[in-house]
Amino acid sequence: MKGGPSQEEIRRHNLGTLLRHIHLRGPASRAVLAEGMGLNRSTILALVADLTAAGLVREELPRDTGRRAGRPSLVVRPESTQVYALAFDVGVDRLAAARVGLGGVVLDRREAARPRGAFDPDEVVGALVGFARRLVRKAGRDSVCVGVGAAFPGTVRQSDGMVRFGPNIGVRDLELAPVLARRLGLGLPVAVGNDANLGALAEHERGVGVGCANLIYLHGDVGIGGGLIVGGRLLGGAEGYAGEIGHMVVNPGGRRCDCGSRGCLDAEVGEPTLLEYAGLPADAQAGRDAVRAVVDAADLGDAAARGALHRVGDWLGHGVANLVNIFNPEMIVFGGTLRDIYLGSAAQVRSRLAVQTLAASRERVKLRTADLGDDATLFGAAELAFAEVLADPLEVLTRLRVPGEAPLPAPT
Amino acid sequence: MKGGPSQEEIRRHNLGTLLRHIHLRGPASRAVLAEGMGLNRSTILALVADLTAAGLVREELPRDTGRRAGRPSLVVRPESTQVYALAFDVGVDRLAAARVGLGGVVLDRREAARPRGAFDPDEVVGALVGFARRLVRKAGRDSVCVGVGAAFPGTVRQSDGMVRFGPNIGVRDLELAPVLARRLGLGLPVAVGNDANLGALAEHERGVGVGCANLIYLHGDVGIGGGLIVGGRLLGGAEGYAGEIGHMVVNPGGRRCDCGSRGCLDAEVGEPTLLEYAGLPADAQAGRDAVRAVVDAADLGDAAARGALHRVGDWLGHGVANLVNIFNPEMIVFGGTLRDIYLGSAAQVRSRLAVQTLAASRERVKLRTADLGDDATLFGAAELAFAEVLADPLEVLTRLRVPGEAPLPAPT
Repeated sequence: MKGGPSQEEIRRHNLGTLLRHIHLRGPASRAVLAEGMGLNRSTILALVADLTAAGLVREELPRDTGRRAGRPSLVVRPESTQVYALAFDVGVDRLAAARVGLGGVVLDRREAARPRGAFDPDEVVGALVGFARRLVRKAGRDSVCVGVGAAFPGTVRQSDGMVRFGPNIGVRDLELAPVLARRLGLGLPVAVGNDANLGALAEHERGVGVGCANLIYLHGDVGIGGGLIVGGRLLGGAEGYAGEIGHMVVNPGGRRCDCGSRGCLDAEVGEPTLLEYAGLPADAQAGRDAVRAVVDAADLGDAAARGALHRVGDWLGHGVANLVNIFNPEMIVFGGTLRDIYLGSAAQVRSRLAVQTLAASRERVKLRTADLGDDATLFGAAELAFAEVLADPLEVLTRLRVPGEAPLPAPT
Repeated sequence: MKGGPSQEEIRRHNLGTLLRHIHLRGPASRAVLAEGMGLNRSTILALVADLTAAGLVREELPRDTGRRAGRPSLVVRPESTQVYALAFDVGVDRLAAARVGLGGVVLDRREAARPRGAFDPDEVVGALVGFARRLVRKAGRDSVCVGVGAAFPGTVRQSDGMVRFGPNIGVRDLELAPVLARRLGLGLPVAVGNDANLGALAEHERGVGVGCANLIYLHGDVGIGGGLIVGGRLLGGAEGYAGEIGHMVVNPGGRRCDCGSRGCLDAEVGEPTLLEYAGLPADAQAGRDAVRAVVDAADLGDAAARGALHRVGDWLGHGVANLVNIFNPEMIVFGGTLRDIYLGSAAQVRSRLAVQTLAASRERVKLRTADLGDDATLFGAAELAFAEVLADPLEVLTRLRVPGEAPLPAPT
């Protein structure tokens, strides 16, 4: 139970809030910022001056001038090409990396397919480091990397980024964060997060869930992951493992799951189950395209594909109904392969909701597909990477920039 | 994205935080408060002076003086007999009310059994108002009631306290808050909350879960309710309906539930199910004592009672396992009749946890019974009633007290 903040803490908070505003909502005039933050114009002027001197924002004429008469107001823009984060996304089938500028602009990206099978940490870290080298080489010499974030399909301990368990990718107790940080050699720590948690964050901050404080994101890769936004914040739980919705048992005694249990949402709705129900041979091509092919076939009237989506969608509906009763969310977002699976089985999901949820809890819930598509998890990793500079911009830049290289305001 | 607070907002925040500290943790010296709140002693001195002038706290010698040499420090105490809240608890079998002093002291209480069967709002409100009259009559003439809270076994809309659905007590769309407020005639609004949510709040603030930021409270009355503390706060969801854990389907196609669905935790674990499995005739005595009798019989070796607890405990374990995977909580608290049911079936619950949760999520979770016993929901209603005065002490008192009747500091 802490007392109120000091003047210096308030200034740092305000600098972070202003930068966050520009980062998430885009360029804005000082008047708009004053209104949005409930601060007077002279305070905003001082904050913008500090952030400008630090090289985080600049003021310039808006790009759509000429429409209105009179002199247009300057807008405060993020220095997107000068201040960037590195984002990595480890998927079961894919590795991706991006250099993302302040403001969420993807400046450059790299991507490669990953063969399924045994997970070789050296190989994966090596590939990510290779991506990073090429991304950093193309950045301007006076630009600065303010953070590194990585999405991983497993449970991740919040305190140190240790990957505890990733059954779909065959990983247990992997020290990804320190190994990747060391091999990157950027002098920056790496923040690692569960892929679905980061997908939830991205859809909440930049996707279909902007402005929605209570949102559940369900992510299909091979298995099913979940990320929970409650009261506007990502739910981590005691150690960061919250959101393992894929291992909620919906069908006791049902299909065996890689986690060792039976009847988990993951086992009843995951990719291998859908493909098996659709009658595809066990050695058939798997992955995102295979899931899409089943949904397309169902659209064209294929009975096996329809039956498969019906069965899988019914269990998906069981899971979603439980979540609606437990969380009273405003929105459920289906991402990754669940985007296609949901679109092909929405009737089953909705019919389970109608029967298995309390009327009060379901009457306002919206079911939506992810806006950011396959990149939700990568964008979420970028947001994780930006978190520190948005919390305390000057402290982070002071630490990263060699004194004299870029002007920084003296602390007041 | 709001900017930092003004000086006046900081002062109000600090007044509330100090009062909350005293209210929840008990009397403390100014030095302890300065340390705990991270403020300097002169700021604490001013805050204590304001709260003392408002009649909310007083400073006096600690009660255990004489043990140590030297002059003991004064401690700041809540004015428990002068500043109180009214708390109501509507249970399926019981109505209870208490006058609770600042600091959480029960000054006086009333309780009556309630026959099961049709819910008559007039009768229930009449009984609560009768309790309140007797409680208020015994309060000192210069004391002040700062809030009224009520716990109800149903889903409650946060915005206006409307009870949307209480299947175990036979209620739908009941305007409890305004009706009770009008008939009490105290000039105060009534804050209504779901009973299990308020039980969670009470166990988190005054019970077994003090200091535990991620806690799940499971409450057994006739059915099963839940309350979720995440990141130190009660999870309300979009409209306050979150925590309907009793209507999570654990056994698809299982026992019919009063909500209209099948296989809900409520239906598989609730009191009628336990009593039926234990072989009690349908017209036998029900209620808390009947549940305890089954648990006692099982302890003495009764095979039917043991079998009943085994079956019910197994489904309880299914539900708890799902919650551990979804929330990664630090603690699960079993309250109401679930206290006894859990004690009689802990082996089943633990064995489901061992099989159906991820190792990372379960390795630190503690399973506990409620400290506050049958009064957790009543104490939670009191905390709900105190919430406003703890958020902004002087504003609330200025509104409630006729000027001149008690000294109030002028706003600075």
